[in-house]
Amino acid sequence: MQKGNVLYGQSGGPTAVINASALGLFLECLDREEIGEIYACHFGIEGFLHEDIIDVRAMPKEELFALRHLPGAYFGSCRYRLKTVEEQEKLLELFKKYNIRYFFYNGGNDSMDTCHKLGGYFDKVGYDCKVIGIPKTIDNDLVETDHTPGFGSAARYVAVTEMELFGDIDSYAKGRVTIIEMMGRNAGWLTATSAYPQSKTGRPHLIYVPERPFVMGDFLKAVAEIYEREKNCVVAVSEGIKDENGKLISEGNLDAFGHSQLGGVASYLCGIVENVLHIKSRYIEMSLIQRCARHLASEVDVQEAMACGREALRFALAGESDKMVSIAVTSRNPYKVDFTTVSLGAVANAVKPLLDEYLYPDNGKIRPNFVEYVKPFIEG
Amino acid sequence: MQKGNVLYGQSGGPTAVINASALGLFLECLDREEIGEIYACHFGIEGFLHEDIIDVRAMPKEELFALRHLPGAYFGSCRYRLKTVEEQEKLLELFKKYNIRYFFYNGGNDSMDTCHKLGGYFDKVGYDCKVIGIPKTIDNDLVETDHTPGFGSAARYVAVTEMELFGDIDSYAKGRVTIIEMMGRNAGWLTATSAYPQSKTGRPHLIYVPERPFVMGDFLKAVAEIYEREKNCVVAVSEGIKDENGKLISEGNLDAFGHSQLGGVASYLCGIVENVLHIKSRYIEMSLIQRCARHLASEVDVQEAMACGREALRFALAGESDKMVSIAVTSRNPYKVDFTTVSLGAVANAVKPLLDEYLYPDNGKIRPNFVEYVKPFIEG
Repeated sequence: MQKGNVLYGQSGGPTAVINASALGLFLECLDREEIGEIYACHFGIEGFLHEDIIDVRAMPKEELFALRHLPGAYFGSCRYRLKTVEEQEKLLELFKKYNIRYFFYNGGNDSMDTCHKLGGYFDKVGYDCKVIGIPKTIDNDLVETDHTPGFGSAARYVAVTEMELFGDIDSYAKGRVTIIEMMGRNAGWLTATSAYPQSKTGRPHLIYVPERPFVMGDFLKAVAEIYEREKNCVVAVSEGIKDENGKLISEGNLDAFGHSQLGGVASYLCGIVENVLHIKSRYIEMSLIQRCARHLASEVDVQEAMACGREALRFALAGESDKMVSIAVTSRNPYKVDFTTVSLGAVANAVKPLLDEYLYPDNGKIRPNFVEYVKPFIEG
Repeated sequence: MQKGNVLYGQSGGPTAVINASALGLFLECLDREEIGEIYACHFGIEGFLHEDIIDVRAMPKEELFALRHLPGAYFGSCRYRLKTVEEQEKLLELFKKYNIRYFFYNGGNDSMDTCHKLGGYFDKVGYDCKVIGIPKTIDNDLVETDHTPGFGSAARYVAVTEMELFGDIDSYAKGRVTIIEMMGRNAGWLTATSAYPQSKTGRPHLIYVPERPFVMGDFLKAVAEIYEREKNCVVAVSEGIKDENGKLISEGNLDAFGHSQLGGVASYLCGIVENVLHIKSRYIEMSLIQRCARHLASEVDVQEAMACGREALRFALAGESDKMVSIAVTSRNPYKVDFTTVSLGAVANAVKPLLDEYLYPDNGKIRPNFVEYVKPFIEG
């Protein structure tokens, strides 16, 4: 077993529990004699390139333990891809300078690419450093793992908030069309979570994900029928829904200057409902709040996020490298998980869409078996 | 003391705690021998006009006690103003039919107008019915009361959510302009609550309320200066901000069909920041969620909402009528309140703007003394 220093970095969009993974890793590090210094990148690998480093052993204990509860990426994140050989050489030099022998990168598929490139480069030049990815993303779109830390808390936020919204929506005899927008540019996992409140309350009536084409005519027909019947219609949409030609629906949304706006697909669809169907409508964007609502975090998610950090060090100390920690669900009911490793090469840059087993041929509905998938995060 | 039946109605926009007021009233009713039947309007006075009535004594106990926790207007609300003498005559007939001798209407300033009209009419025709208004609104814009039930929970949601958002915003070295939009068409109480997180974290940097003109040039200058200095700028705006001529800023916001959109002022301002200052920006609308986030409700607010319901019956049994229950703060620190009554005529249709003592001559800032005002709801 090799003695050496640890470097940890956060990368990509924050989640409600990414800091819990950091805490899990650090607590395990503090327990192990093999570990010397514990460093964290300030603003990810981009910060480390400028030697912007935080000394974790010097953090006050209260600050360290607060990581369990803090939303956002406490150590600072980045969206930075390694592009040149010079960058890899620079990193090698810095890893040697700080005697980094264990590197942990906490992020999504882009971040796993960074991790994989670095692992491969160190291997090629014969620098002994164990490189392990710790998964994280509210989008839940990493391959080779049942789910990712961060998703469970975002899913719980979506489900609880929707059910609270229904109380508000039901307050009036005269209904309207309410369109709720969730994050998920390439994958509908988070939007599909609406199947849970639907299983309890019958709403949202319609759920649209990016995995199936969004056909405007079908959408308007479905909304009109439901509104005619119930004088109310609630729709969940993913920001990433696309038409039959793969064009983002949100591209139709222009700002006051006529420029295409990112997001805002719910607002755009409300405009169409009002102008075509002449039904009053209202949009609600879950916005950034869905990825930082720590007050609604899923306890299962917090525990798993910490465990992924802890297991990352255990796997590294067992000699594994160029791997990502993966969550395997060994039983859905009762819910039980196991932690394994998968090859970083298989995870890097790949996107896992919402699985076919949860989808129907047409958009607008999610199969009931998906409720079993998300239940442990929401009820836990 | 007069024996008779009770009628309770909910009116206007829901809050996280309006059902707690209903529970407070009903629990007090169940304790009093003078009270016969307890009825609730289904969808407010509009529903009652169609004899759409709920028998509260027949509600299962679990359902009754759940009112403490349920967001939305459980009994159904309406936005209905009494306009004709015929309606008043119809109501008199129905009040006689159901022997209603105590009427409680739970709402904002429009609802207090309904209540006041009815009280005056019953008085004129000599029908003995005590009419008491129970205050409610997240906007906190009722006169003759220190604050209104519902405001405290919405304020707590705004403060907690903003502080969680800052964790997300701080996750990147490269900042942007983030504009957060709160409800409050005519009064900035809820938006001004941002002064609390500002007192803890320095953000939001700017807070714009409807009580002072929103000068676009001043706004852009302030944003540019803060962004230049901090590479980040967070702004809180009320949906109701108006320009120097009293025109709503949000009127500039058009949908895909060129029609003016309600709300969306933050999205509109982001477009201007991007196109004029060329700084990346992002908007977050607190949306309906701010008035139904029961999971973040203020315990002080829940207690006061229940107390307003309970006190309403006590005042009615003591012979008062054509009054609204009012909350008097007898001490801010430690926080202590007392419940009194005020004349419905003084409350009906009046709007209480954010008081001058909390404002500067220019928009964009809130005086620090406002933090003391909101603190009991957020920390409680």
